[in-house]
Amino acid sequence: MVAVDVANMDDWARRSAGLGVLKERFHNRFSDTASIREQHGHTTTWRANQAPDAVVFVQSEDEVIDVVRICAEHRLPIVPFGAGTSLEGQVNAPRGGVSLDMQGMDKIVAVSAEDLDCTVQPGVTRCRLNEHLRDTGLFFPIDPGADASLGGMVATRASGTNAVRYGTMKDNVLGLRVVMANGEVLTTARRARKTAAGYDLTRLMVGSEGTLGIITEVTLKLYGIPAAIAGGVCPFADIEGACNAVILAIQSGIPVARIELLDALQVKACNAYSKLALEERPTLFVEFHGTDASVAEQAEQFGEIAADLGGGAFQWARETEKRSALWQARHDAYWAALQLRPGASGVATDVCVPISRLADCLIETLADIEAARLLAPIVGHVGDGNFHVLPLIDIGNAEEVAAVERFLERLTERALAMDGTCTGEHGVGQGKTKYLERELGAPALATMAAIKTALDPQNILNPGKILAL
Amino acid sequence: MVAVDVANMDDWARRSAGLGVLKERFHNRFSDTASIREQHGHTTTWRANQAPDAVVFVQSEDEVIDVVRICAEHRLPIVPFGAGTSLEGQVNAPRGGVSLDMQGMDKIVAVSAEDLDCTVQPGVTRCRLNEHLRDTGLFFPIDPGADASLGGMVATRASGTNAVRYGTMKDNVLGLRVVMANGEVLTTARRARKTAAGYDLTRLMVGSEGTLGIITEVTLKLYGIPAAIAGGVCPFADIEGACNAVILAIQSGIPVARIELLDALQVKACNAYSKLALEERPTLFVEFHGTDASVAEQAEQFGEIAADLGGGAFQWARETEKRSALWQARHDAYWAALQLRPGASGVATDVCVPISRLADCLIETLADIEAARLLAPIVGHVGDGNFHVLPLIDIGNAEEVAAVERFLERLTERALAMDGTCTGEHGVGQGKTKYLERELGAPALATMAAIKTALDPQNILNPGKILAL
Repeated sequence: MVAVDVANMDDWARRSAGLGVLKERFHNRFSDTASIREQHGHTTTWRANQAPDAVVFVQSEDEVIDVVRICAEHRLPIVPFGAGTSLEGQVNAPRGGVSLDMQGMDKIVAVSAEDLDCTVQPGVTRCRLNEHLRDTGLFFPIDPGADASLGGMVATRASGTNAVRYGTMKDNVLGLRVVMANGEVLTTARRARKTAAGYDLTRLMVGSEGTLGIITEVTLKLYGIPAAIAGGVCPFADIEGACNAVILAIQSGIPVARIELLDALQVKACNAYSKLALEERPTLFVEFHGTDASVAEQAEQFGEIAADLGGGAFQWARETEKRSALWQARHDAYWAALQLRPGASGVATDVCVPISRLADCLIETLADIEAARLLAPIVGHVGDGNFHVLPLIDIGNAEEVAAVERFLERLTERALAMDGTCTGEHGVGQGKTKYLERELGAPALATMAAIKTALDPQNILNPGKILAL
Repeated sequence: MVAVDVANMDDWARRSAGLGVLKERFHNRFSDTASIREQHGHTTTWRANQAPDAVVFVQSEDEVIDVVRICAEHRLPIVPFGAGTSLEGQVNAPRGGVSLDMQGMDKIVAVSAEDLDCTVQPGVTRCRLNEHLRDTGLFFPIDPGADASLGGMVATRASGTNAVRYGTMKDNVLGLRVVMANGEVLTTARRARKTAAGYDLTRLMVGSEGTLGIITEVTLKLYGIPAAIAGGVCPFADIEGACNAVILAIQSGIPVARIELLDALQVKACNAYSKLALEERPTLFVEFHGTDASVAEQAEQFGEIAADLGGGAFQWARETEKRSALWQARHDAYWAALQLRPGASGVATDVCVPISRLADCLIETLADIEAARLLAPIVGHVGDGNFHVLPLIDIGNAEEVAAVERFLERLTERALAMDGTCTGEHGVGQGKTKYLERELGAPALATMAAIKTALDPQNILNPGKILAL
């Protein structure tokens, strides 16, 4: 290779030279064909596709280091790509550069059944990990619905249906290996269950959406598969009763594993899509984990609460298959909702409020949906105070887009006024940067920007995400 | 006040001027008397007292802002001081400056029983919070033994006996207000139970030991006081059996609330100090929380495990008073140990290893204690893999000090070789900076230093702690 004076090149020449070096280094694992590029700008979001200049398919940490060093030299943006299931434009490439496809880093490095932990490469998906673990009697509980990559789940601080009992990714990552913007490899922690050894670099990386480093190895907590699982569905006369049942269950300390709300419209969508015959009323999907005795006790306690609050006949799904079908329907709620208006785009929202305000927030939001004449089903991880309204709109209709943007503003302001957050679990990505300052204030944004600038002074790691840098 | 040209002063004159400004601002809540200064350099540690130049007793966030602005202008170090119960020299002032006594910021700002959370000023101690909460049926579980201030517990990422079930401070802080080095007030998060809104500034501050900002308000998770609590003690034939009982209990998923190990020497010390009559053998103190039925089930499961592994007769303490007496004895273990050699200093250690290595680590450590002829009882939060050896030495005897320093080296290396940490819960302070690079590597130290420099460019916030900056 001929030595090239990168420093004196203009922007276009320097970036082109960088792409050339990457192509030479990665051969057929470098692609700049339009379809591959577009596929990597695509996510399950209504945001416009912003394709990278090229995609590099890496297979090892050493290769990630090479990509980072080449991109740093040529000031090329790097956008990490896992399973492409993020919802806020996290994998879009608004400033071009390289999409770093991590799916080839898919080794399960170690499972320590004795320590209830495992170490995986970032491209391993949560379903594959759980298949691999099946014979050990252990499982990894965090379940955002999609079969996301574990690296992506770390990067976006994913949570989902099990979070009310098992926490979010923040609570379940023991340590990470991360390639930093300077090409060095950071180890954030050892494998001990707790540590007070300096700043919590693990938690700093969890939820950093690829803006502070590229995750190359993840050590996760595991849990014993519960001896007994009981679950079922319970329709309510109104959403207030359903919410109050959730609030009371949480306040009573029932260690519910999952407690999910579907509003009447979402139940209707699921009935059609997943061939169910549920009453089309606000409905809770619940699940309890434990021993036979404790599961029975939890179910009884919850049943009493539900009955007191207008809950209809509780339908238990004792068989694994029936229970799996119900949860599959819950996981397919997004796709089911889209079928309410074929061809429409779903605008994912993600507010989360203190649980005492959940009923208020949902009731006001339902009234707003009606007043704004939106078609917008609701699902919620209500045990955490987190719910998703999914307005279905014609993305080509400027009036509809404007109406939904006004709705998003009102929804966010409502949650913030209740001491909540604009994003319980989807992350900031491109869509919520504007809400972040309203939520946390200028000093928080300045602190985040100072950290970002200190660790990635050239701003090559997923630029334009989380912060408007 | 006359305008002073601080920029052109020499170091001594500038610092003196700063102390003068503080004295003028705080009058009788500014003190530079020797006894007050020494008291604020003193902690429960064997490290030499390093007194600050002065102590300021603040009563509000606005006052903290004033202190930070004055100290920033005059480049005076600021050392936050809570209850003075830290163990690694966190409140020492190796470079002089101001000890910022937070004990006057002791308001309980809000308790939301509905949301299971509360907001307190940093000087509130954990015991006072729990007294305040008693009538609500809620409690704050994190219990490091000492009646530490909650601000200090955040700053050092405290944990203690309940961590195996309720987590550490990292898991129980919902949000913070923090005065940054530039005098601005950072809000790290809203009160929602989960959030994906940008970098996890809450967790960055938890465990930062006063080096990144001064905590002025803490929002904490609370829990319902369990309907039933059962606990007791169980002696074992040897430490291996006790460890294996712990490991099996954790692996079996028994949601034990506390599981603490005392070695035979520590039991002897507690018998003498707390007037108990326990068998002087390795002993587990355990406690279960839940409903009547679940506590009974947990106790039965654990009893079977203990019996299989050489556990002797389990002594249950069903009455609250008897149980409190046992846990008081556990909490007084440090003071009891000191009485094994009156006049001696206790050198607190704090390694934590993956639980599968706990028995190995303890057995090797006991052999090392014997070979090195140390008097060194052991207590452990063994459910987390964390234990404390407390060598008792004559601090004036250079040979003894050298011997214990070699022992500390070996203990740390042993834990690191087992993928553990040099500090499970005490923090780095002054004592463990040298181990941090061995544990996490140069990139982790460089990352921490970059964050510190970005957020506190003048290095006025607790300099010389965690990092050798």
